[in-house]
Amino acid sequence: MISVAIVGASGYSGEELVRLLLSHPDAEITAVTSRQYAGQPLGRVFPKFSNHPRAASLTFTEPDPAGIARVAKIVFLALPHGVAAEMAVPLLKLGCRIIDLSADFRLRSGAVYKDFYAHDHPAPDLLKQAVYGLPEVYRTQIKNASLVASPGCYPTSVLLPTVPLLKAGLVKSTGIIADSLSGVSGAGRKAEVDYLFVECNESVRPYGVPKHRHLSEIEQELSIAAGESVTIQFIPHLIPINRGILTTLYLAPTNHFADEKAMAELSGKIADAYNRAYGKEPFVRLLPGNALPDTKNVSGTNVIEIAWRLDPRTGRLIVMSAEDNLVKGASGQAVQSFNVMCGFAETAGLQ
Amino acid sequence: MISVAIVGASGYSGEELVRLLLSHPDAEITAVTSRQYAGQPLGRVFPKFSNHPRAASLTFTEPDPAGIARVAKIVFLALPHGVAAEMAVPLLKLGCRIIDLSADFRLRSGAVYKDFYAHDHPAPDLLKQAVYGLPEVYRTQIKNASLVASPGCYPTSVLLPTVPLLKAGLVKSTGIIADSLSGVSGAGRKAEVDYLFVECNESVRPYGVPKHRHLSEIEQELSIAAGESVTIQFIPHLIPINRGILTTLYLAPTNHFADEKAMAELSGKIADAYNRAYGKEPFVRLLPGNALPDTKNVSGTNVIEIAWRLDPRTGRLIVMSAEDNLVKGASGQAVQSFNVMCGFAETAGLQ
Amino acid sequence: MISVAIVGASGYSGEELVRLLLSHPDAEITAVTSRQYAGQPLGRVFPKFSNHPRAASLTFTEPDPAGIARVAKIVFLALPHGVAAEMAVPLLKLGCRIIDLSADFRLRSGAVYKDFYAHDHPAPDLLKQAVYGLPEVYRTQIKNASLVASPGCYPTSVLLPTVPLLKAGLVKSTGIIADSLSGVSGAGRKAEVDYLFVECNESVRPYGVPKHRHLSEIEQELSIAAGESVTIQFIPHLIPINRGILTTLYLAPTNHFADEKAMAELSGKIADAYNRAYGKEPFVRLLPGNALPDTKNVSGTNVIEIAWRLDPRTGRLIVMSAEDNLVKGASGQAVQSFNVMCGFAETAGLQ
Amino acid sequence: MISVAIVGASGYSGEELVRLLLSHPDAEITAVTSRQYAGQPLGRVFPKFSNHPRAASLTFTEPDPAGIARVAKIVFLALPHGVAAEMAVPLLKLGCRIIDLSADFRLRSGAVYKDFYAHDHPAPDLLKQAVYGLPEVYRTQIKNASLVASPGCYPTSVLLPTVPLLKAGLVKSTGIIADSLSGVSGAGRKAEVDYLFVECNESVRPYGVPKHRHLSEIEQELSIAAGESVTIQFIPHLIPINRGILTTLYLAPTNHFADEKAMAELSGKIADAYNRAYGKEPFVRLLPGNALPDTKNVSGTNVIEIAWRLDPRTGRLIVMSAEDNLVKGASGQAVQSFNVMCGFAETAGLQ
Repeated sequence: MISVAIVGASGYSGEELVRLLLSHPDAEITAVTSRQYAGQPLGRVFPKFSNHPRAASLTFTEPDPAGIARVAKIVFLALPHGVAAEMAVPLLKLGCRIIDLSADFRLRSGAVYKDFYAHDHPAPDLLKQAVYGLPEVYRTQIKNASLVASPGCYPTSVLLPTVPLLKAGLVKSTGIIADSLSGVSGAGRKAEVDYLFVECNESVRPYGVPKHRHLSEIEQELSIAAGESVTIQFIPHLIPINRGILTTLYLAPTNHFADEKAMAELSGKIADAYNRAYGKEPFVRLLPGNALPDTKNVSGTNVIEIAWRLDPRTGRLIVMSAEDNLVKGASGQAVQSFNVMCGFAETAGLQ
Repeated sequence: MISVAIVGASGYSGEELVRLLLSHPDAEITAVTSRQYAGQPLGRVFPKFSNHPRAASLTFTEPDPAGIARVAKIVFLALPHGVAAEMAVPLLKLGCRIIDLSADFRLRSGAVYKDFYAHDHPAPDLLKQAVYGLPEVYRTQIKNASLVASPGCYPTSVLLPTVPLLKAGLVKSTGIIADSLSGVSGAGRKAEVDYLFVECNESVRPYGVPKHRHLSEIEQELSIAAGESVTIQFIPHLIPINRGILTTLYLAPTNHFADEKAMAELSGKIADAYNRAYGKEPFVRLLPGNALPDTKNVSGTNVIEIAWRLDPRTGRLIVMSAEDNLVKGASGQAVQSFNVMCGFAETAGLQ
Repeated sequence: MISVAIVGASGYSGEELVRLLLSHPDAEITAVTSRQYAGQPLGRVFPKFSNHPRAASLTFTEPDPAGIARVAKIVFLALPHGVAAEMAVPLLKLGCRIIDLSADFRLRSGAVYKDFYAHDHPAPDLLKQAVYGLPEVYRTQIKNASLVASPGCYPTSVLLPTVPLLKAGLVKSTGIIADSLSGVSGAGRKAEVDYLFVECNESVRPYGVPKHRHLSEIEQELSIAAGESVTIQFIPHLIPINRGILTTLYLAPTNHFADEKAMAELSGKIADAYNRAYGKEPFVRLLPGNALPDTKNVSGTNVIEIAWRLDPRTGRLIVMSAEDNLVKGASGQAVQSFNVMCGFAETAGLQ
Repeated sequence: MISVAIVGASGYSGEELVRLLLSHPDAEITAVTSRQYAGQPLGRVFPKFSNHPRAASLTFTEPDPAGIARVAKIVFLALPHGVAAEMAVPLLKLGCRIIDLSADFRLRSGAVYKDFYAHDHPAPDLLKQAVYGLPEVYRTQIKNASLVASPGCYPTSVLLPTVPLLKAGLVKSTGIIADSLSGVSGAGRKAEVDYLFVECNESVRPYGVPKHRHLSEIEQELSIAAGESVTIQFIPHLIPINRGILTTLYLAPTNHFADEKAMAELSGKIADAYNRAYGKEPFVRLLPGNALPDTKNVSGTNVIEIAWRLDPRTGRLIVMSAEDNLVKGASGQAVQSFNVMCGFAETAGLQ
């Protein structure tokens, strides 16, 4: 059993970490922190955990690095950006390994961070050692990392469907469009009028147009995959579901497919690229036949669904993905990295 | 008072026509038909209408052209495609003017109809005389039309934001992408498992990928606006709201905007094009400032909201629209055409 | 045209008053106030009103009694309890007639107010002159009232179904139970975590058990109807809809109905009592046949639906009602009182 | 590993059985039947199961008793009433143990069955041997049962909160009222207009008033607990959530509590009764402090939440419960009985 702490355990992704790690066969939660709820038993703040045998002894504490380092080997940070780095610095010095769910260590460049997050990076020296926590792409690096930057929810939904195609040279690195739809939990447990039930129910709306913060990490990772600088169009929308992200990607194949034969050939190559990349991945579901992604089929799970269609009318490749923004898009993926870091079965606690 | 009949009054768009026309100052509903409910009072099938003073005398009847023509000057057809044409032919012969909400008369070409709807057109001779019922574009032609083909819900959400830009030559006619999100009423009042509450709630899913039927009329009308053949990418998604369509359009300006000055100039031209087209239109809301479309702000109304943003990172123009699929996307637009046909104030019964 | 002001126009019931009064044939909104939005045009804060011809000239102002009294004859107060009374006192002195949507003037007794609202009544002298604004019960008194206390949403849903039965002596005044389900707009446009989309969606929960504030006015009015002191059981629940209250009432008929004949006789008397009370009321829908109330059939309207069933197994009478909490439960009912006060058709602006 | 079959695996409770039993440590699903999907792989019909290692080999078959008995020791029947009995008879003869989720074997009396289900009982001889599968009440009997009749969703939500109070003589057996709110999955995966998304969203409605079928088993079990014949009032409502039942019970304590001392004493007795009954039950959560039940806190779990309040104003005891209708109200409870029958930990596969 590895001892773990969850810092910022009262937000939606923190709560989801608690849910997953309480049932993890090889992890033992030894600390849950929350400034707001410090001193209160976990089961009183979240009644749904109160029946869990392992939850009985857990009480929210203030986020004190020394205290955390005393009881936990691996620390999950579920904090706002900027704040996460302030915790990571002392915890790393105290010998903890960190899985950070914020955006603080996802970018390799402090300058890009400042451009997108509007303040200087709080710990630029750590950017080099941080590993981007997308196990399907960086499994080897995650294994020995002391600081894992777990990807954002939108980036996961864009990167997993796109990276294999770029790596295989099957689609152009220019002109990529990602149109994403997110459930409201993506906005966090924040008391703001915009996210009240009445304001979201029977409502759909784009936001963050045209420069959303997640663009920075999406473009960084697509550029690495493509081997050249990639700029994409990314438009997020808020839709009235609790959990889930559905992303539709508009891509241009590098080869035209003017006739049926060319189309069949290209289809074969795309299928191959996906099968090579994900055929043995436990959390990527390549949809067969007529099936298309649906967030309800991944809700509560660490699975991302991917389907694709070539459109002979427009010459485009349409790729669609569905994930649970709080699981594969956040806390489940963080636990997956945790499993990799500890040498556990990658599906431990996630099935 | 003009006497009107609603044929197929028990589906969602038929029901919405009843709602709008019951309160119309210059229309009198004299017949509502429904094979399923023939013989039953309107107020018993739809209790919400039972308190309306004008509804008391209305009883569903079988859809008999001769009977309808005897009591109604203008007939709204809210029927499935194929069936609508079968009613339109005799009603036109009997002297009625028709506003058809189906797809039967929206296309100028019977061949395109067959390609997209998979059967021969049931009344190809009428295609020439039919007018596409988008008042903001075809107001003059609607005025004297005997057969108005009211546009589809998706087409309305795509055409109104795009047509002025194409006409002004501000965006390229190639590479257009329309990503649309529709509420479940768009599927009609059909008893199918896919549209059950449990299957739609907490679910988002693309469908009809990549060749949805509405493409045919969208491309026809965009081609007319552009003066050349236009092929677009259109991907619809089903989201858990009752009413509303949100469409995000990805467009390429004909001129680059490499610096701020060029961007400001292009912005001015786009604003001008929209203001010229819609500045005096009562049902098009060009959103100012930071506002973005939201379906909840148009729900139950005949208004379409439009906002746009230039993205200097990608060189693209993003245009977003929101409408109520049952009102501006169907029955409200049909009533708007009715007002034009009758010389009434175009907002009569729609405010 | 009567000039009206809406004080507190940015909450849900204030916004609904704006919607209804903008389209009212005999009212002209001359002032809308909101501390939060003072100085901003109405159409910018609520884009959905921006297309309305009458809304163009309206800008939110600070709630200044003298300024309001200068431009408005009748003032709607859509403010929290306690605050409403502070506005009512000066406005009445300045000669305005008031329709107050808060709880401040609904109770005849300052002591009961203090018991339920936990502070001294801010203007006890006005309690005597205030009229409870339930037009179906107090139409005559509303006509000449200078201060109308518009009923709460839950009380309306309980009182309209119950009062005629108590007045007719058909049900016992003891043992009454009202089980109510309310949409989330009933909680107001307040930025609280409990009312976030994610906290309300896929959630149902009782609250305010067992002593909700609305009990005070419900029991006051039931006691008047019964001619004796009435204490009831009232349990509200929060359900994930925007608008609507569904109330189920458990009542004991004064006469047993041991056999079919007695049951038929009692049924006749109940039907008679309802028909006498509401047969000609434009906003009460007595459901015939097998129909049961459904909030979706009253959403956006000023109608309350009522149905009832005798249960020979238990000897009870079950009465069910459905209303839109923001219309018949708040702003629509206030406009109905306004119509009565001004001698307009009671349905003006409400159909 | 015990081999199990799920007959009727394509409805909501069948699908939920698949979900729970796929992850059960001691069960192996060897057959899933569905007339509609016979011949199709499980993972194609339900993509969400396709990644599960144990699901790969499962294909829907026709419901053939001999074939099922060959591969399964315990058979779960998730079929409509009437049909379930037809399968149970041959399967029992073939030596299988049965857990039936339908209503067919819940009643001890064939006459009551006919009164509520409107047809003769299809296998009256089996009624005597069937055990009502509420483990918290009938654990001993379930252990050796060959035919377990798993309780209905509403009955579970009523019985667990009420039985301990009746057994302890703390509440009267007369005048009990149960007001219940159910999510739409309770209606089953049936293609009916009433359960379409658009008909349920933004809608709340009572139904089955006043004589719902579940009354029969509720009253049977309450009568056993009370030691005398009990008739109750039960009114169900449909609310727009996928999963969950919230039941509010109105009960009359046998002793009055006129003063604070009597109230404290009665409170102590009620708390004692619940603690004795459920203090060690893994799936009953007695809510402490100010907490009230909320369906979102039990969604997806086998837990029922219970809270209660004495109301000194009315002399009543209000008890509220929340459960997931598909888990504790159906499939989870069935698996709980399965665990009891097999001598497994009762929480196996349910945490």
